[in-house]
Amino acid sequence: MTLYKAPIADTMFVLREIVGLDAHNNRPGFEDATPDTVAAILDEAGRFAEEVFHPLNQSGDRQGCTRAADGSVTTPSGFREAYRQFREAGWGGLSADAAYGGQGLPHVLAAAVNEYLSSANMAFAMYPGLTRGAIAAIEAHGTPEQKAAYLPDMIDGRWTGTMNLTEPHCGTDLGLLRTRAIPRDDGSFAITGQKIFISAGEHDLSDNIIHLVLARIDGAPEGVKGISLFIVPKVLDDGTRNGVSCGAIEEKMGIHGNATCVMNYDDAKGWLLGEAHKGLRAMFTMMNEARLGVGVQGLAIGEIAYQNAVDYARQRLQGRSLAGKAEPGKPADPIIVHPDIRRMLMTMRAINEAGRALVLHSALKGDIAHSSTDVAEAAEADEWLSLVTPVIKGVLTDKGFESAVMAQQVFGGHGYIAEWGMEQFVRDARIAQIYEGANGIQALDLVGRKLALNGGKAIMSFFGEVGRFCEENRADPAMARYTKGLKKGLNDLQQATGWLMQNGPARPDNGGAAATDYMHLFGLVALGYMSARMALAAHRRLAAQDAEDAAFLKGKLATAAFFMDRLMPETAAHLARIASGADSLMALGADEF
Amino acid sequence: MTLYKAPIADTMFVLREIVGLDAHNNRPGFEDATPDTVAAILDEAGRFAEEVFHPLNQSGDRQGCTRAADGSVTTPSGFREAYRQFREAGWGGLSADAAYGGQGLPHVLAAAVNEYLSSANMAFAMYPGLTRGAIAAIEAHGTPEQKAAYLPDMIDGRWTGTMNLTEPHCGTDLGLLRTRAIPRDDGSFAITGQKIFISAGEHDLSDNIIHLVLARIDGAPEGVKGISLFIVPKVLDDGTRNGVSCGAIEEKMGIHGNATCVMNYDDAKGWLLGEAHKGLRAMFTMMNEARLGVGVQGLAIGEIAYQNAVDYARQRLQGRSLAGKAEPGKPADPIIVHPDIRRMLMTMRAINEAGRALVLHSALKGDIAHSSTDVAEAAEADEWLSLVTPVIKGVLTDKGFESAVMAQQVFGGHGYIAEWGMEQFVRDARIAQIYEGANGIQALDLVGRKLALNGGKAIMSFFGEVGRFCEENRADPAMARYTKGLKKGLNDLQQATGWLMQNGPARPDNGGAAATDYMHLFGLVALGYMSARMALAAHRRLAAQDAEDAAFLKGKLATAAFFMDRLMPETAAHLARIASGADSLMALGADEF
Repeated sequence: MTLYKAPIADTMFVLREIVGLDAHNNRPGFEDATPDTVAAILDEAGRFAEEVFHPLNQSGDRQGCTRAADGSVTTPSGFREAYRQFREAGWGGLSADAAYGGQGLPHVLAAAVNEYLSSANMAFAMYPGLTRGAIAAIEAHGTPEQKAAYLPDMIDGRWTGTMNLTEPHCGTDLGLLRTRAIPRDDGSFAITGQKIFISAGEHDLSDNIIHLVLARIDGAPEGVKGISLFIVPKVLDDGTRNGVSCGAIEEKMGIHGNATCVMNYDDAKGWLLGEAHKGLRAMFTMMNEARLGVGVQGLAIGEIAYQNAVDYARQRLQGRSLAGKAEPGKPADPIIVHPDIRRMLMTMRAINEAGRALVLHSALKGDIAHSSTDVAEAAEADEWLSLVTPVIKGVLTDKGFESAVMAQQVFGGHGYIAEWGMEQFVRDARIAQIYEGANGIQALDLVGRKLALNGGKAIMSFFGEVGRFCEENRADPAMARYTKGLKKGLNDLQQATGWLMQNGPARPDNGGAAATDYMHLFGLVALGYMSARMALAAHRRLAAQDAEDAAFLKGKLATAAFFMDRLMPETAAHLARIASGADSLMALGADEF
Repeated sequence: MTLYKAPIADTMFVLREIVGLDAHNNRPGFEDATPDTVAAILDEAGRFAEEVFHPLNQSGDRQGCTRAADGSVTTPSGFREAYRQFREAGWGGLSADAAYGGQGLPHVLAAAVNEYLSSANMAFAMYPGLTRGAIAAIEAHGTPEQKAAYLPDMIDGRWTGTMNLTEPHCGTDLGLLRTRAIPRDDGSFAITGQKIFISAGEHDLSDNIIHLVLARIDGAPEGVKGISLFIVPKVLDDGTRNGVSCGAIEEKMGIHGNATCVMNYDDAKGWLLGEAHKGLRAMFTMMNEARLGVGVQGLAIGEIAYQNAVDYARQRLQGRSLAGKAEPGKPADPIIVHPDIRRMLMTMRAINEAGRALVLHSALKGDIAHSSTDVAEAAEADEWLSLVTPVIKGVLTDKGFESAVMAQQVFGGHGYIAEWGMEQFVRDARIAQIYEGANGIQALDLVGRKLALNGGKAIMSFFGEVGRFCEENRADPAMARYTKGLKKGLNDLQQATGWLMQNGPARPDNGGAAATDYMHLFGLVALGYMSARMALAAHRRLAAQDAEDAAFLKGKLATAAFFMDRLMPETAAHLARIASGADSLMALGADEF
């Protein structure tokens, strides 16, 4: 069986040194989030992930979900009982509104817990994950009556939620969707159509499933401007079944523990959530939440894959160190002595640690944007979050997949065998690059929308922040090693941004051709910035001499050094590709491929 | 179902323009390989791959192989009949020695055919693929009696072959192996031990299976110097079963159509192949053959993945071209209009075409090394092949996997669903990076052994060849676009080589730390060289004006331009990583991870 140990010390380091939890204790929700409470919650969450979710990960993958002839769906053995424990422990409502039964704790804490649960069992963690997205949409767009009707049971976990966007002929391009909504006299709508790829669409974990469904009201404008969002419960108030059912479970590459359903709506009763024809806006509340959650999945798989690769590399004896026998008493050295194995382990480690910092730092921005009474502060936090959301989703899931592949590679032939569990991480991680907007779409969102937001204010403010950090620390000899690499990356990113500003407007294909490279270039600078900030914090703590965790802190320095030596050089290649423009991509006609 | 069309026009272009088949018609085996004959053979092989192998690819994956209680193994439905047709058509003996029933055609032709079969059904193509490796080892190291006893039936395909190296505790480090061989009075040996991950170890396709097994003769020296290679047939001469049986079939990530077996040897009767204690040398004959074959698998999956992605991208309507509606009459444009989709398609295409050229160019070197009577010429060809074998294996399989992942990404959510077939390509391609020496081992072979071969003669000769090409063509304005990118890549490779020569000997970990980046840097230059040579040939043909295939030739130019713009820039990042040395990889102690 695979192993998993929640990285609590690292989370706490990030919360203390990067997020600066202490500095925010006057914010709503943060009063209760004292360091001790946070440590206790993380401890408990870590144990829950390790002991309840993780043991069901491989068995859940093997068994998958099964659909009976009546359309009901059974989750793998043990899921029901584990979900019951999850509910009882209140994990689903950690950061939800206290007015509806949530614990009202900061989102930054929920993000940390979500990482642990997703590492331990990604397919399982998706059930409450989707519920959180639906809760966010109802919190933001529901009427007081709707909030009262749905939120308490969803926050409690008695009910779960889903997002219903995709149809067979449309995913990215929602303007094409065909699901119809016909107004009824009682203010409800009759929803008819088919949705596909609906995660957690039907299952046996909860008493009710609250589907949020995109549909077009009869007579609405064509395209995305005629789309509305509806609340469609599986079970109606009076206990009768609504006209919605699971038509099939998709056979897919991974996340077998989660039921990915074809959902058929047949005159199902639904209620408008938010304004008519403005469903996409309401959906984006949920989607942004979901995109951050998917980014966390990338991090989460990267972390558990890394942990297992380290463990295997320490135990597997094969070959001898090039620097001379490391363990002469054994028939061979553990493979962790080999630089090429180190290359893979350190890559995963550097990405995971920086990714965790970026996620929690951004989750704090979400808390500030959500609850700050200082309008300017809230706006600035929201800008950061908007800018970084596609990067967290696109880059952390690409890197999480790469980490899963690397970890599998460390296992050699055993990595390809199912019982070792490593190939499951690869199969599970793969979906995170695809769903909630494929990563190419994230890149277009970044380049096409987010860069231009408020006249480029967000990106300029990011450049300013990272630039100032480099300026302030480059004179410190202990920090120069990190600021030099970061500054080089920042320069490449600024050049790429300048290139886009000059060459995008006249020829939009230049932006499209640059998008994925730009997203990864941005990601390297954002992650490198996090890495350098952690190095700075580690230096300061080490200089204070009383550091009990000196080994941990030295690890931070080594990891940041690796980041600059081995990961940051990629920025130049991204810049070169971006600056080559769209020509060589668009030269062939569609029929010439 | 997935689609597949053998890329015959491209193979013929490479054979004509890069391999220069005409220039070799005086070599043994090449007399019969006239352009017309070759075209006819490729046509026939393509049809066979498309019509016989390919229809069984997805069903074979779904069904997998099953082992009965008696240890017998059943392949998926249709495999037996398809294998019978394969045998009858004589595909297994295409390049095998005519003295033993083979057709004696060039290896370069067999490599082309092997690509088609592996694209169509990689798991299936492995059965004859492993047989070819075993044939090569017996041809090179067998006694005349052994050749007469085994080759005819193996070349005919009535019997198949396997390679038995790995044991539970050792894969890469074969010096640790424990399988024992005890001499018997009749000159045979009693082989006892367990081998794992044995592809095609047991199945129902052939009357007999000839296992080539690494074992240690009692009393032999420890380590790799005490290893011998044995021929262990499943069925003995007298029709009785030998003491070898399949103990289990591994449950694995992919290639389900191939039976990956745990093989138990229990006093099995075996005969020494080659000299005692020199089994590794004999095994390497087979291994080098196998490594090239695995590189071809990477190419093969890259090709079929690409073809399906192109087809989907032409048909899937989603969103509008950034340059304005491409198909205003349709509800949306086909996604092939989007630059980010193009980025993925062109990457696959550029790697596939250059990879095919590199494989066939190198296979020709194999033919020359094997059969040339000019000693210097044969030695030079052998040097090229030795140098490039780890690159073909390591780089083409890494790229093939990346292509499969990209092609899956083009399919969006459908890429994750089994019935569309794209996720199978990802799962199948993944093994090629692992087996026959994990790609990290290929990189170490390149950096640690191949660079130094004959005082660095091979690499210097490679530099000379590529450098001359750049020199000779840079003055041609039509070619400057390609030579410039290639020259930049070559410079980076030369610098990296210089860095290794200066920093490797004093600290071997520097070589290990550089290995994977160096292999990929070398790969980009070798592939870029092939791409530029194809561009040159296309230019010349286009200039000759009578080119019927002008569209095809213009595609070559566009693809080479893409290679230089978008793929070659990566060489600088590889160089930067290499030049950062081993420090940041080795900083942490094994217990500090």
